[in-house]
Amino acid sequence: MTFDSLSPDQIQSLHDEQLGAYRTLQDAGLKLDLTRGKPSPEQLDLSTELLSLPGDDFKDAKGTDTRNYGGLNGLPELRAIFAEIMQVPVDQVIAGDNASLAMMHDTLVFSLLRGTPDSPRPWAEEDEVTFICPVPGYDRHFALTEQYGVKMVPVALNDDGPDMVAVRELAADPSVKGMWLVPTYGNPSGAVVSEAVAAELAALEAAAPDFRIFWDNAYAVHHLTDERTKTADIVGLCAASGNPNRAIVYASTSKITFAGSGVCFFGSSEENVEWYLTNLGKRTIGPDKVNQLRHARYLGDVEGVHQLMEGHRAIIAPKFEAVLEILRDRLGSHDIATWSEPKGGYFVSLDVPDGTASRVVELCREAGIAMTPAGASFPYGDDPRDRNIRIAPTFPSIEELRTAIDGLATCVLLAAAEQHLRS
Amino acid sequence: MTFDSLSPDQIQSLHDEQLGAYRTLQDAGLKLDLTRGKPSPEQLDLSTELLSLPGDDFKDAKGTDTRNYGGLNGLPELRAIFAEIMQVPVDQVIAGDNASLAMMHDTLVFSLLRGTPDSPRPWAEEDEVTFICPVPGYDRHFALTEQYGVKMVPVALNDDGPDMVAVRELAADPSVKGMWLVPTYGNPSGAVVSEAVAAELAALEAAAPDFRIFWDNAYAVHHLTDERTKTADIVGLCAASGNPNRAIVYASTSKITFAGSGVCFFGSSEENVEWYLTNLGKRTIGPDKVNQLRHARYLGDVEGVHQLMEGHRAIIAPKFEAVLEILRDRLGSHDIATWSEPKGGYFVSLDVPDGTASRVVELCREAGIAMTPAGASFPYGDDPRDRNIRIAPTFPSIEELRTAIDGLATCVLLAAAEQHLRS
Repeated sequence: MTFDSLSPDQIQSLHDEQLGAYRTLQDAGLKLDLTRGKPSPEQLDLSTELLSLPGDDFKDAKGTDTRNYGGLNGLPELRAIFAEIMQVPVDQVIAGDNASLAMMHDTLVFSLLRGTPDSPRPWAEEDEVTFICPVPGYDRHFALTEQYGVKMVPVALNDDGPDMVAVRELAADPSVKGMWLVPTYGNPSGAVVSEAVAAELAALEAAAPDFRIFWDNAYAVHHLTDERTKTADIVGLCAASGNPNRAIVYASTSKITFAGSGVCFFGSSEENVEWYLTNLGKRTIGPDKVNQLRHARYLGDVEGVHQLMEGHRAIIAPKFEAVLEILRDRLGSHDIATWSEPKGGYFVSLDVPDGTASRVVELCREAGIAMTPAGASFPYGDDPRDRNIRIAPTFPSIEELRTAIDGLATCVLLAAAEQHLRS
Repeated sequence: MTFDSLSPDQIQSLHDEQLGAYRTLQDAGLKLDLTRGKPSPEQLDLSTELLSLPGDDFKDAKGTDTRNYGGLNGLPELRAIFAEIMQVPVDQVIAGDNASLAMMHDTLVFSLLRGTPDSPRPWAEEDEVTFICPVPGYDRHFALTEQYGVKMVPVALNDDGPDMVAVRELAADPSVKGMWLVPTYGNPSGAVVSEAVAAELAALEAAAPDFRIFWDNAYAVHHLTDERTKTADIVGLCAASGNPNRAIVYASTSKITFAGSGVCFFGSSEENVEWYLTNLGKRTIGPDKVNQLRHARYLGDVEGVHQLMEGHRAIIAPKFEAVLEILRDRLGSHDIATWSEPKGGYFVSLDVPDGTASRVVELCREAGIAMTPAGASFPYGDDPRDRNIRIAPTFPSIEELRTAIDGLATCVLLAAAEQHLRS
């Protein structure tokens, strides 16, 4: 029962049926928010212990007083845990404050105003600086490059990573200085960059000697199934390919412990780490080491991180299942929409009929269901096909989520029917 | 008994006497560090309670879950406390993470790459950007502007603030975009900017429409006597003078609670705050609100801050007294050195005979007493008279401090005698 196989009368009848459902939805006076990938209170409760740590014992394993100034690269024992997760030697890991986005920002700013170790000049002195943006992607990445006038060029993000034909072509342009990438459980599609694609990225011929991959491994350990997907070792692959400074790995505990009060990490080559610290040392004397100690004590080791993530999975996997179940039930028979079935991460990516995503989001909003704006997953907020919608299932309760996704499905069908009736 | 009134023999005898004392000092195998303005462990112990806060109650006064994302401008109840200290309406105060230096860095970066609300273009697109640097001043300020190629021009910092004749002259140059200033208990001289000088700065005719005063009120409540010196209300004065966006006030709890794990603050006009938040919102989703809640609970209110500062004073005022006592005893009769007698802040500024500061610091180092490098209080590390030495008395124990300052006095006398013998 695809829309194309329906007669005009059948479409009209489907439209009227969905319009009825939509009016009921509006009458319900909902106020649901699926805009952002926020952990739910139940997830945050998993780490309640953090709220009373570290207690009176404020010294790290080496005896450093974490309360005082210093320690620019962060607490050794916490860096050790994340070095393992990030597959980077501990000396090449920096632990920061509560936002890996801030580390990406600062990397960009240092590159713009000072240049990287491989730059002939600061990026701000180039006529043009371009970033490759796999789409759909993370809106805050794109907002950051847009903020500083970096030109963004989209390439398709396939199931195994970015479209390498397009990437290779773009990288031949010396103005192309960088690339955004969420390698594991892409935001929003859940795509995982394969070993093969990672190796291609590492070996890629880039015209710019200072080409950088911002490898944002935000969901490195955020599995939704029994499969612990292993992220490709991009720093190792780059080194092996003779491009040691190409990749920078970012990670954070924002979706492990507390979204607003976690610790973030930067991992790369020795030279990049030294470069970053030299610049960072002008900005701050050091990170919040007490918070890092709190985290080191609470997490313990890598296995502690994985155990905590099992706790998250127990809370959020049923929410993802509910989303997929409702999408299948309501949209599966119509062949008008496709969606990701992610094995991890924080999102479901929904593609609706071309030209209707904005209308769907508008209908949702008018029924009290706030969705991420259509186009958000694209540079400049511009989804050329106006079809992609990002669903963030983690924050609402499962009952609210079911109501919201059922409402969303109604809006998808209604918008599709409207479009068919107009055409 | 000034050096000039001594005969060559008397100088030689003084030299030999001090050399003897210096050799004894070297033999003691000291390892003392007076380089940085770090709180002592005893001072940090005053805030031990913070290490177990906030406990299970993680909601702020409005019921916001501080563990989650959001709240870009910071926790309202903590901002309220510091709004009072900074003399800025609470809506015009932003609470950040652990380093006000980072806020100054970001203000500079946003100005360079995006321009201020009053800038015809981003500062990075100007041929030259110049900052006025009252000296002696804070080395980390100068390192920050140097990092980004901002030209620094020193002006004298008098007891009531910067030399306004020099400032007025410089501000007539449109490349002069800003000025560093520690208004209360200057680092290192302890100078306090008077109401009159502050009013002049606010009303100053600046050729650059986007001239900014980076008003780093790091020691706003850090009194060493019963006198609670009140900082001039620079934001109010600027508004009254028709230059509402001129001044930005920075503050932090680094030397109130924990040096490495405090909270910093930005206060300015409504327009500057909006500008800063718009830019900041691309860098981060929000600050560490749990740490802000911890601080709000612990400090309680402004009176709580003042009480805590009395605790600090009880610990550090005797250290400052010890420094002054030894300098008076050892150097007072020789008329070769002058020093500040600060009513607050973290430093004593010592001026030794012109051309000997580097030698004094070298002698100290070779005797195991680490001092801040000579020249550090000047842009580019260049003290044209090579005479200023910054003493940071807070971190060492009082016994270590006495040993170090006595050793420093020996080095001052020895270097002065060496110089006289050479001339």
